[in-house]
Amino acid sequence: MASAEVTNADSDLRQCIEDCLACHRVCMETLTYCLGKGGKHAEARHLRLLMDCAEICQTSANFMLRGSELHSRTCFACSEVSGRCEESCARMGEDVVMKACADMCAQCSESCWRMGGGVMPQTPNPEAAQRAADLPA
Amino acid sequence: MASAEVTNADSDLRQCIEDCLACHRVCMETLTYCLGKGGKHAEARHLRLLMDCAEICQTSANFMLRGSELHSRTCFACSEVSGRCEESCARMGEDVVMKACADMCAQCSESCWRMGGGVMPQTPNPEAAQRAADLPA
Amino acid sequence: MASAEVTNADSDLRQCIEDCLACHRVCMETLTYCLGKGGKHAEARHLRLLMDCAEICQTSANFMLRGSELHSRTCFACSEVSGRCEESCARMGEDVVMKACADMCAQCSESCWRMGGGVMPQTPNPEAAQRAADLPA
Amino acid sequence: MASAEVTNADSDLRQCIEDCLACHRVCMETLTYCLGKGGKHAEARHLRLLMDCAEICQTSANFMLRGSELHSRTCFACSEVSGRCEESCARMGEDVVMKACADMCAQCSESCWRMGGGVMPQTPNPEAAQRAADLPA
Repeated sequence: MASAEVTNADSDLRQCIEDCLACHRVCMETLTYCLGKGGKHAEARHLRLLMDCAEICQTSANFMLRGSELHSRTCFACSEVSGRCEESCARMGEDVVMKACADMCAQCSESCWRMGGGVMPQTPNPEAAQRAADLPA
Repeated sequence: MASAEVTNADSDLRQCIEDCLACHRVCMETLTYCLGKGGKHAEARHLRLLMDCAEICQTSANFMLRGSELHSRTCFACSEVSGRCEESCARMGEDVVMKACADMCAQCSESCWRMGGGVMPQTPNPEAAQRAADLPA
Repeated sequence: MASAEVTNADSDLRQCIEDCLACHRVCMETLTYCLGKGGKHAEARHLRLLMDCAEICQTSANFMLRGSELHSRTCFACSEVSGRCEESCARMGEDVVMKACADMCAQCSESCWRMGGGVMPQTPNPEAAQRAADLPA
Repeated sequence: MASAEVTNADSDLRQCIEDCLACHRVCMETLTYCLGKGGKHAEARHLRLLMDCAEICQTSANFMLRGSELHSRTCFACSEVSGRCEESCARMGEDVVMKACADMCAQCSESCWRMGGGVMPQTPNPEAAQRAADLPA
């Protein structure tokens, strides 16, 4: 691999770590805001998405910080969850806090997508795949 | 959906929660064992996989316990990570502790595969997908 | 230390791990239940305590599973948080789910208290203590 | 409370959140560094302290971000754990990575001490205290 590619890969990884850490924080702060505000902001589905997003961002960042070879899997999951959280925040309307959370989720989702986008559903190992294939429909 | 199917789905979910929680615990205990034992048991790659597996099992269990609609994503990631951890533990040879960890990881991997196996890489949202598609190769 | 004492200490530690793991799980399930039920069950302060308790139980269990020499500190924090969560759940009245959560929190609080009860506020190190003492009131 | 005091309290809280988040990150990166370096850097006790510190920093930050009334308890635990981690890193000698980690741990420990320093060991509730007092020595 050429060194320019290495540098790009490193730069993408560093950016993704930043985005996951920032998104975790914003989702936690937004959760607190929504709990205090009540009404539609505190509906179960919305609060659950904020908790989901904060937790998977944390886990995704930790995999990358740990230098895990499997970070693409957690990035992939994080990309989807933060994408859904973005939608839920965007639906809240003209609220500046929700808007900031939606923007951060969008950035995290895109960043994680770049890191985890190549993940295809693969069997964790052939035997497990076979066992899964043998299950009744 | 027929009620028998609902019951099966509920039963699978409950089993998957049990397996993730048990696998988290066994991986944490095995990590402690490997740290104490040193040598090949304490090699970076192996310790990292045990940490990865413990953390994604915890996150995966929490998504299911929270009733998250996105638990299939974290289950999918957990299935792959626990499958890799199983392999790493199995390679350690005739050690009874490693064998028990490998067995629990295999069970968790299979259980999560059933919950998350239908996950296809989807774009978190169309715009993010487009932005990702527009990136230089 | 006599071997009977060692055995008692080990047995207390094992029980405390079980209690923290069980309390984490029950608090997560109760959080989901309360989110779905709404009303006083979904008030901010109550939900926050359930989230707090689930998280510190998880951390406290992880410290013990990791064989950390500092587990008394996280046990001490966990004892206080689960004690408060017990009170909050008990105030919800005759609800069988809340009653079960209160009972589990009480058991975890007591178990952690035995592990962490000897913790006195000590300075993490003398220099930090001095710096803290030098702060303006 | 005068508004200047409120502002100081808010400012301390914000600083403590920053310090816990930064310390979590540095400890994770240092853990990865130590795993790769081996030797005394990868001794069980040192790795365990880095894992302990990363986890309690994360939990402590989450309590503050969630607006928890009990954050002084997790701050207190975090202050002690990060103080110990500072010592362990400082003992590694002239290594610039370890020095940076020791410095961040010291800052986090002091910051958490300000937030949690007033915590006295209190009983989580009177009944639990009585049960603990009734235990055989």
